[in-house]
Amino acid sequence: MKKVGIVGISGYSGHTALKILLKHPGVRVTYVSANNTQGKVDDIWPDLKGQTALKCTPFDLDKATTSCEVILLAVPHTIAMQLAPDLLKAGLAVIDFSGDYRLKDPEQYQQWYIEEHVDKKNLKKAVYGLPELYREEIKKAKLVSNPGCYPTAALLALAPIGATQGKKITSIIIDAKSGVSGAGRKTVTSMMFCEVNGNFKAYKVLNHQHAPEIDLYLSQVTGKPISVNFVPHLLPINNGILETIYVSLKEKTTAEAVHQIYKKFYKTEPFVRLLNIGQQPEIKHVVGTNYCDIAVSVSQNGKLLVITSVIDNLLKGAAGQAVQNMNLMCGFPETQGLK
Amino acid sequence: MKKVGIVGISGYSGHTALKILLKHPGVRVTYVSANNTQGKVDDIWPDLKGQTALKCTPFDLDKATTSCEVILLAVPHTIAMQLAPDLLKAGLAVIDFSGDYRLKDPEQYQQWYIEEHVDKKNLKKAVYGLPELYREEIKKAKLVSNPGCYPTAALLALAPIGATQGKKITSIIIDAKSGVSGAGRKTVTSMMFCEVNGNFKAYKVLNHQHAPEIDLYLSQVTGKPISVNFVPHLLPINNGILETIYVSLKEKTTAEAVHQIYKKFYKTEPFVRLLNIGQQPEIKHVVGTNYCDIAVSVSQNGKLLVITSVIDNLLKGAAGQAVQNMNLMCGFPETQGLK
Amino acid sequence: MKKVGIVGISGYSGHTALKILLKHPGVRVTYVSANNTQGKVDDIWPDLKGQTALKCTPFDLDKATTSCEVILLAVPHTIAMQLAPDLLKAGLAVIDFSGDYRLKDPEQYQQWYIEEHVDKKNLKKAVYGLPELYREEIKKAKLVSNPGCYPTAALLALAPIGATQGKKITSIIIDAKSGVSGAGRKTVTSMMFCEVNGNFKAYKVLNHQHAPEIDLYLSQVTGKPISVNFVPHLLPINNGILETIYVSLKEKTTAEAVHQIYKKFYKTEPFVRLLNIGQQPEIKHVVGTNYCDIAVSVSQNGKLLVITSVIDNLLKGAAGQAVQNMNLMCGFPETQGLK
Amino acid sequence: MKKVGIVGISGYSGHTALKILLKHPGVRVTYVSANNTQGKVDDIWPDLKGQTALKCTPFDLDKATTSCEVILLAVPHTIAMQLAPDLLKAGLAVIDFSGDYRLKDPEQYQQWYIEEHVDKKNLKKAVYGLPELYREEIKKAKLVSNPGCYPTAALLALAPIGATQGKKITSIIIDAKSGVSGAGRKTVTSMMFCEVNGNFKAYKVLNHQHAPEIDLYLSQVTGKPISVNFVPHLLPINNGILETIYVSLKEKTTAEAVHQIYKKFYKTEPFVRLLNIGQQPEIKHVVGTNYCDIAVSVSQNGKLLVITSVIDNLLKGAAGQAVQNMNLMCGFPETQGLK
Repeated sequence: MKKVGIVGISGYSGHTALKILLKHPGVRVTYVSANNTQGKVDDIWPDLKGQTALKCTPFDLDKATTSCEVILLAVPHTIAMQLAPDLLKAGLAVIDFSGDYRLKDPEQYQQWYIEEHVDKKNLKKAVYGLPELYREEIKKAKLVSNPGCYPTAALLALAPIGATQGKKITSIIIDAKSGVSGAGRKTVTSMMFCEVNGNFKAYKVLNHQHAPEIDLYLSQVTGKPISVNFVPHLLPINNGILETIYVSLKEKTTAEAVHQIYKKFYKTEPFVRLLNIGQQPEIKHVVGTNYCDIAVSVSQNGKLLVITSVIDNLLKGAAGQAVQNMNLMCGFPETQGLK
Repeated sequence: MKKVGIVGISGYSGHTALKILLKHPGVRVTYVSANNTQGKVDDIWPDLKGQTALKCTPFDLDKATTSCEVILLAVPHTIAMQLAPDLLKAGLAVIDFSGDYRLKDPEQYQQWYIEEHVDKKNLKKAVYGLPELYREEIKKAKLVSNPGCYPTAALLALAPIGATQGKKITSIIIDAKSGVSGAGRKTVTSMMFCEVNGNFKAYKVLNHQHAPEIDLYLSQVTGKPISVNFVPHLLPINNGILETIYVSLKEKTTAEAVHQIYKKFYKTEPFVRLLNIGQQPEIKHVVGTNYCDIAVSVSQNGKLLVITSVIDNLLKGAAGQAVQNMNLMCGFPETQGLK
Repeated sequence: MKKVGIVGISGYSGHTALKILLKHPGVRVTYVSANNTQGKVDDIWPDLKGQTALKCTPFDLDKATTSCEVILLAVPHTIAMQLAPDLLKAGLAVIDFSGDYRLKDPEQYQQWYIEEHVDKKNLKKAVYGLPELYREEIKKAKLVSNPGCYPTAALLALAPIGATQGKKITSIIIDAKSGVSGAGRKTVTSMMFCEVNGNFKAYKVLNHQHAPEIDLYLSQVTGKPISVNFVPHLLPINNGILETIYVSLKEKTTAEAVHQIYKKFYKTEPFVRLLNIGQQPEIKHVVGTNYCDIAVSVSQNGKLLVITSVIDNLLKGAAGQAVQNMNLMCGFPETQGLK
Repeated sequence: MKKVGIVGISGYSGHTALKILLKHPGVRVTYVSANNTQGKVDDIWPDLKGQTALKCTPFDLDKATTSCEVILLAVPHTIAMQLAPDLLKAGLAVIDFSGDYRLKDPEQYQQWYIEEHVDKKNLKKAVYGLPELYREEIKKAKLVSNPGCYPTAALLALAPIGATQGKKITSIIIDAKSGVSGAGRKTVTSMMFCEVNGNFKAYKVLNHQHAPEIDLYLSQVTGKPISVNFVPHLLPINNGILETIYVSLKEKTTAEAVHQIYKKFYKTEPFVRLLNIGQQPEIKHVVGTNYCDIAVSVSQNGKLLVITSVIDNLLKGAAGQAVQNMNLMCGFPETQGLK
C-alpha cells in the first residue's frame, strides 16, 4: 500500500483525486491539505460522509514528507513550483496538476503565467504526464507534470495524424468548449450560476496559456514546429470538454485512411476510444470516466480533416490522468482505480 | 416625463428595473449609481449596448436629488435605511427594494437583519408595496417598501383565503423554491455554477427573514395573528419562484368553493392570473413578466387546501412590482411599461 | 458467479443497473433485452463502449430462463406482471422495478395503474424491497418488488418517527421534488429539454400513484392507518429526489430528541446517512451513489417536524436498491458493487 | 392595422412570432392555425393567458385568405411550399420560416430536403429575407424566404469581409453552436431533457442543410463562389446561437483594419451591434432580442480572422427577423415591435 497525499483538496480536481484514491486498492491516503479550508474532510465534502475520517490542515512540509511516499499537487499554478522542490528533495514522487512544469522555457512560462519560474532545475527534469505519448518516461519519473485539460483532448486528437502525416499539415484550428469546473473553484462573478446558465461565450480568443503547451508537445510528436490557433469557449455544464479540431492538409485524404491511422495508433490504449466513421463523441459518454473518445471526418474535397474529441476535464483532464500517471510511477496496473 | 434614478444597478434587480424603465413611456432615467462598479452602463451590462448612454457612478446625494424626482433603491438591506432619509427630506419619492422598511418593529428588524434600525421615523411611515392589498396607500405614499420576493408569492396566494376564511385556518406551511438570482449577485461559493447546477437543497429551514414579513401582512389581511412555517429551497434556474402552500382548515371545503373566492378576490387585478381547477402554474409561464399565476387544490377529505403560486422573482418579486408601485405613486396607468 | 439478466436496458434504470452489474464482482450479466431497441449494447449506450460485448434482443422467455438465475425487470408497469409469472415458474429470482407488485390490493392497483392485475397470486407473495425495513424477508424472497423512487425517500425519512412515535402523528405532508429521469425515457413533449430547462412545476397534486404505496408501508411501520398528503414537482436536473416532509405532532418535541431516534434507528444501516442538526442534505451529495441522506428540524413551538431526505432516483430509488436487494437474495455482502 | 395570420403556432418560432405580434402596434393577429393542436391559444401557451382570445384551428385556406393580408408560415420545410402558392394567388403577402424558398436550384433543394420542390415558380421569385443585405428587395416582395438561424449569424458575420475583401479569402470554417429550440418542438429522444442536459456534441458534421444556403448568399455578397466548412453543435440551453468563424486570408491584416470595415458596413443597421476589439459576444446578451452581436479578432501572424457572432435563434434567427421583414414589406418602421 503506497502512502499518498493530496495537497489542495478544497478544489474540484483535488476532490476528484481524493474520491478515486479512497477506492484505489493499491494506496492509502495518508495526508490531505488545503490552505483556505480546514477540518474534517466529510464536512468540507459532504458527499464523502461515512467514507473517510481524514482531516484537512494547512500544508505542512514535515507532515507531508513523513506521512507520504507520493504527493499529488492539486494547487494553482505558481504555488506548485514553491512546494515541489522540497518534496522531491525529501524523496517523494510528485505529480503536479498545475501549469508550473509544462512549458520548458522559463521565459515562456513567465510570459503566460506572469510570475518568474522559481524552480528551473526541476522544470527541465519534469516529465509530461500524457501516458499515450510518454509512458516509458513517466514510469521512471520522480516529478510528473500532469497535462492541462485542453492540451490532453487536443494532443490525443492530433498525435496520430501529427506523428504520421505531420509534413502534410498546413494549419490547425482548435475550437474548444469546456465545462465550468475547468476554471477551478474560485468565486468570481463570471462563474456564478446566473452568469453561466443559459449562456455561452468564447474567451481568451487566440490567447490562452494552453496553446503554447499544445504547440510544444505537438511539435515533439510531429517532428516539426507547429503552432495551433486555439479558441476556448465556456459551456453551461459542470464537467467535460469537447474540442472540434480543423486540420488543413496539403494533399487529399479520406475518412477511411485517417481512421486506419488512428485505429493503429491507439490499438492498445486502455483510455482512448476511437469511434466508428459517422459517429460523434458526446460529453455525457465520458463524464465520470477516464476515457477520451475521438472521431474523425474529412471534407468532400479531402483536404480538411475534422477531429472531435471529448474528455471529462476533471478525470482524463486532471485527477484521472494523475492517477494513471501515479499507477505507472508506482508499478500498479495502469487502469487501477480508474475503471 | 418623470425623472427617475436607480441606485444599485450592478445587481440583478437594479438591472431589471433599468431595462423596464428605459422603455417606459412615462419616465426618463436620469441617474444610475452603484458602489462597486463604474463607467458606461452598456459596458457593465452589454445586453444594453446601443440602448443607453447613461454612466454609472458611486452614489452621490446631491447628484441624485438634483437629477431625480423618484429614486429606486436596489441596494442590499442595511444600506437603504442609510440613504432613504436624505432622499425623502429632499422631496423625492423613494421605492426601496430591500428589507429595511418591511418589518415595522425595530427590534424584530434587528433580530432578522442583525443591525440596529437607523431610520425608525420613516419605518413607521413606509407603505408596503403590494398593490393588490395596499393600492390606495401606495398612491399617496412618499416611501414605498417593495415586498420581498417570497412574501409576494405567498401573500398573493394566501390573501383571498385569509381575508375571507381566516378564522377557519389552523396552520400554514409554505414550501418555497426560488431561482438563484433571488440571492443577489454576491460572489459566494454556494452560488457558483458548479455548486448549483444539477443540485437542489433546502436552506434556512424554518428560519428565513421573509417568514416574519409574511406573518405581519398576512395577519393584517386575516385580522388575526398568523404564523407560517416557511421552508425555502434553491432551484437550479436563474429566475422564478414557485411556492406550494398547505393550508389546514377546521372545516371541509371544495376546490370549487375556494376557486370562487379567489376569482372574486382577483377579478380586476391586472397581474394576478387564477388558473382553472386542474391546471398548475409553471415558472416558465411567468418568467419575464409581472404576472403571478395561482392555482388551488383541495384534498379528498376537504380539510387541506394546496395553493401553488409562481412569479418571476426579479419582476413581480422585485423590479416589476417596484415599477407597478412607481406607476401608482406617479399617477401613471398601473400596467405601463409592464405588459 | 451468479448469472443475471436485465429486461428493459433501453431505459434509464435498466442502463444504470447494467453499469453497476458490469463491475459487480459476484455476477455475470448473461442476458439483456429491450423491446424497442436492438443490437450491440455499446451502440445503444455509447458510454459503455469497450466495456461489454453484450447484444440486446427483444425479450424471449426461453433465452432468459436458460441463460439466467436472476432477472431484473426494468420495464414499465403492466408489463412486469406479464413477464414475472413465467420467470418465477422457471425457478428464477425476480426483482421488479415497476409498480406492479407494490400495492397488495388488486382493486387499488387497478385504480392507480388503470389495468386489471393479471398476476394476483404472486402479488400476495412479493416482498417489498426496502432493505432497511424488510431485510430478512428479502433474503428469503423469490420475487422482490423494488420500491418506487418517491416512496423510498419518504419511507426512509418517516420510518423512525413512525415506528417510535406513530401515535403522536396527526398529519403528514410530503412536498417532493424529482429530477427528470424519474419519468423514464418516454418521448413526450413535457419532458423535452426546452420545456423543462429553466422551469419548475407541481404535477399530479394530491393524486400520484406513489401516495398509496407510501400509505401502505408507512401504516405497517407505524402500526396504524396513515394517509399522507403527497405533492410531487419536476426539477430541471437529470437525477435526484429531495423530499421535504412536514409531520404535525400532538405533543412537543425537540430536534435533539428526534435526532436521537433517527440515530438509533439507522445505527447500522450502510446506505442511510443521518446529518448533524443544522446541516441540510443536497441532491449533489448523493447523485451517483446508493445513499439516502436525511436531516431533521423542529419548529420553535415543537409541534412541527421537518424531515428532508435525498436520494439518487436511479440508484437508491431504482437500480441501486435493486442490486442491494439482489445482494441480499444471493447471499452477497449487501453493499457489493454499490460503494 | 394590418391583419396578420400565423400558420404553425404550436412550434417555438410560431409562438415567438405570436408574442411579438400581439404587442405590435401596427398589426392585429386575425388568424392562427396549427395542425396537431387546437383550441384556445392560451390553453396551448399558458404564458399568454389573459393576453389573447384567439382560437387555433387546423389550417384552412379560405379562413386564412379571408381574414388576413399577411401570413407568417411557421411550418416545417416541405409544408410551406404546399401552402404558399394559394396564399400568394389570393393576394396575401407571405413570409416563410422554412427552408423551402431559400435554395434557388430545385435539384439542390431536393438533395438537402429530400422531397421534390413543388413550387418552382415562386422559388425563383422569393426574396431572401436578410434585411441587412436585401432590404430594398424585401420592401417590394410578396414572398419573403426568412433565412435559417445558422445562416443569419454566419452571413451577418461574413458579409462585411466578404463584400470588401472577398478575393483575399482562402477558406472559411464555421464552428456553430445552437440552443435546443433550433431543432423545433418535435418529440425525439435526442432532444429530451436528460439527453441534452449536461451534454454537448457535434452533429451533421460538414453535412448540414444550412451550409449550401450560406454558400449561395455569401457567394452573392462576395462576388465569387465560396464554399464554407460548417460544423454545428448542440448547446444545453434553450435559445441562442454562437458561431466562431475562422477566415483564412491570403494577406496580412489587423484587428483594427477589420474592425473599421465592419464598423462602416453596419453603421446604420438597427439590429447589428459591433463590439469593441477585445470584447466577446455572449449569448445571454442577445437572448430575447433581435440583435446580432459581432466581434472580430486577428491572429498574431495576421492571416487568420476569427469572427464571433451571436443571435437568439428564435428572434433574429426566425420570428424576430420575420417581423423585421414584415415591417419592411408593410411600410412600418423597421424596428417596430422589436425593441
